[in-house]
Amino acid sequence: MGRLTGGDPSLLRRINSAVVLHALRATDCATLTEITRVTGLSRPTVEGVVEGLIEAGLVVEKAAEEGAARRQGRPARRFRFRAEAGHLLGLEIGAHRVAALLADLDGRVIGSQAKDVPETAGADERLERLRGTVAELLRRAGVARGSLRAVGVATPGIVEADGTVRLGTALPGWTGLRLGERLSRSFKCPVLVENDANAAAVAEHWKGAATESDDVVFVLAGLSPGAGSLIGGRLHRGYGGAAGEIGALHLLGREVTPETLLSTTDQPLHPLDEQAVAEVFAQARQGDQRARAAVDRFLQRLVHDVAALVLALDPELVVIGGWAAGLDGVLAPLRHELARYCLRPPEVALSRLGDAAVATGALRLALDHVEEQLFSVEGTTTPRR
Amino acid sequence: MGRLTGGDPSLLRRINSAVVLHALRATDCATLTEITRVTGLSRPTVEGVVEGLIEAGLVVEKAAEEGAARRQGRPARRFRFRAEAGHLLGLEIGAHRVAALLADLDGRVIGSQAKDVPETAGADERLERLRGTVAELLRRAGVARGSLRAVGVATPGIVEADGTVRLGTALPGWTGLRLGERLSRSFKCPVLVENDANAAAVAEHWKGAATESDDVVFVLAGLSPGAGSLIGGRLHRGYGGAAGEIGALHLLGREVTPETLLSTTDQPLHPLDEQAVAEVFAQARQGDQRARAAVDRFLQRLVHDVAALVLALDPELVVIGGWAAGLDGVLAPLRHELARYCLRPPEVALSRLGDAAVATGALRLALDHVEEQLFSVEGTTTPRR
Repeated sequence: MGRLTGGDPSLLRRINSAVVLHALRATDCATLTEITRVTGLSRPTVEGVVEGLIEAGLVVEKAAEEGAARRQGRPARRFRFRAEAGHLLGLEIGAHRVAALLADLDGRVIGSQAKDVPETAGADERLERLRGTVAELLRRAGVARGSLRAVGVATPGIVEADGTVRLGTALPGWTGLRLGERLSRSFKCPVLVENDANAAAVAEHWKGAATESDDVVFVLAGLSPGAGSLIGGRLHRGYGGAAGEIGALHLLGREVTPETLLSTTDQPLHPLDEQAVAEVFAQARQGDQRARAAVDRFLQRLVHDVAALVLALDPELVVIGGWAAGLDGVLAPLRHELARYCLRPPEVALSRLGDAAVATGALRLALDHVEEQLFSVEGTTTPRR
Repeated sequence: MGRLTGGDPSLLRRINSAVVLHALRATDCATLTEITRVTGLSRPTVEGVVEGLIEAGLVVEKAAEEGAARRQGRPARRFRFRAEAGHLLGLEIGAHRVAALLADLDGRVIGSQAKDVPETAGADERLERLRGTVAELLRRAGVARGSLRAVGVATPGIVEADGTVRLGTALPGWTGLRLGERLSRSFKCPVLVENDANAAAVAEHWKGAATESDDVVFVLAGLSPGAGSLIGGRLHRGYGGAAGEIGALHLLGREVTPETLLSTTDQPLHPLDEQAVAEVFAQARQGDQRARAAVDRFLQRLVHDVAALVLALDPELVVIGGWAAGLDGVLAPLRHELARYCLRPPEVALSRLGDAAVATGALRLALDHVEEQLFSVEGTTTPRR
């Protein structure tokens, strides 16, 4: 007869910790007896888990806080979660600006800061600007750097699991940058690097246009659109972090470049930036025929990109963000064409978080990481940095 | 001070059942003490769970089997999982044939059967053919119909959660067919209906070309390709079951239809079936210029479809199945073009299960369902039928 040898004890400990912590975070405070009853775990298991959480500084005994001498006899010990035990940062690195959000362990934002940065700035200058933004934010909020438990960073480009930017053509000197490692020098806590469209998708789901849906594609619409997807409420990064990088699809058809697409002359549009594109859209609104044709081509491409994402993923909801979301008439043609060609057309909505989407998503990822960490008081999980 | 009221007792019971059953299935047999030790659950919890599993016929006490009088005193009771307690079917409904696989509760195949069916057969005739195939298979294997615990069915088309075919142009009379309900009349157990490409993806992951990867896109390549995706080892159906139905993408570009694409004359190819297409490929191999051009167009479209899936999902591996997988020279241009245009090109492989992929996937889905059911001895989950 065989013997029972299976099972993963550290996994069970993590599950038990998660269960206890969920119970404690859902209430003001609770006794060991209450936790034992609600979780179905044995009392020794609950005691071990709570002890670990106290050691980690994440749980405190209420009686100890309120003075042990307050009551006679031996009242039942009560415990509560300490949201003030640490802080989180959500950072955004963009072409024109860097931004930072500061929050407690429940994800409540307690401060924010942003600075402009030249489009031509190299990696060193851009990171220095970000460091200055963070320093100012922490100083203003009166939060010590040592109190930070996790930092989320969102950046354009494909981000590898170790925080290296595999490909990032939007920012000078960005491809190959070991962004996670560079930023880790400024913090003692884990630094989590994420693609900007992925972060924005997480943010819209947390507190934006997608709070009601777990199956969302967020399109960061611009000259070369990127997308972030949530499937069943969880971020879908893809095997190599490249999911949603749909901008390359047109290369296959050998179709025209964005410069040609948006040109109203016989020459490619130069420089190809937001201001130049906004001008083309303004001309189109004033009735200029060539500008209208350029805008039509641009929207048709956006429709094709979004359709490819929708056919592959079949989301409930598509959220359009990025600067193109501010352009007139993006939603109507998208809805019309998706209804024609998608077997099950999704809802289409504009971003509700606008400029704040990317940094908010970075903050949520830091919060997710801390919550995972809480569920692993034995230190058995390796942070993604 | 707040009171601890949260938690979902039925969810906890399901989790506890799953933990106990996993432990039991991983071994020959075990005592209550062993199960308690490995799972970390309390003894009363383990006793309750095991009792529920015995009532469900899925666990048996070893001592009871071997004769209670065999030993003196009160030896510790030992329990084992009963794979022979029930059976599963995996069914495939195709344009030219229907097929069935029979297995035990561990998914071990103990019989198979297939029958041809005319391409023009209507829904009634096709389903009758399937019923006959199943009846013959059960009779040959000596398995009673009442022993079936779950039936998986794979079909072309978009399948809704209730087993209705929302859209299925490949088979006559298929769109709108309440396939799950129709087949449920023949079985007392749950009938799970799934899209054929989705089922094949599951099969290749279970025992085909994708056993080493959890992030897979399976392309059922044909005139209008469909795809099934696994993300983190789990089937991605999409919000409305339409994920991977990439065939519609070309409609957006107003590009030519498959009939025109594969034509070697000035007229659309008619009839458009596998035999006609195989002839075009044969002519191309013999050096016919128009046929070679037609094949190039066909492959280019396949590359575009696969690229859209890869850019959206970023899988580790793409498996090519379906009849086009049998055509010469599908892999080389796919690998070449994906490497050029995908930021992180995936591996590309041919299906290892061939014709058996779809029915094998249907069987695996039946097995998945039974395993889920095992984890829910209280009957709190609703089967998807």
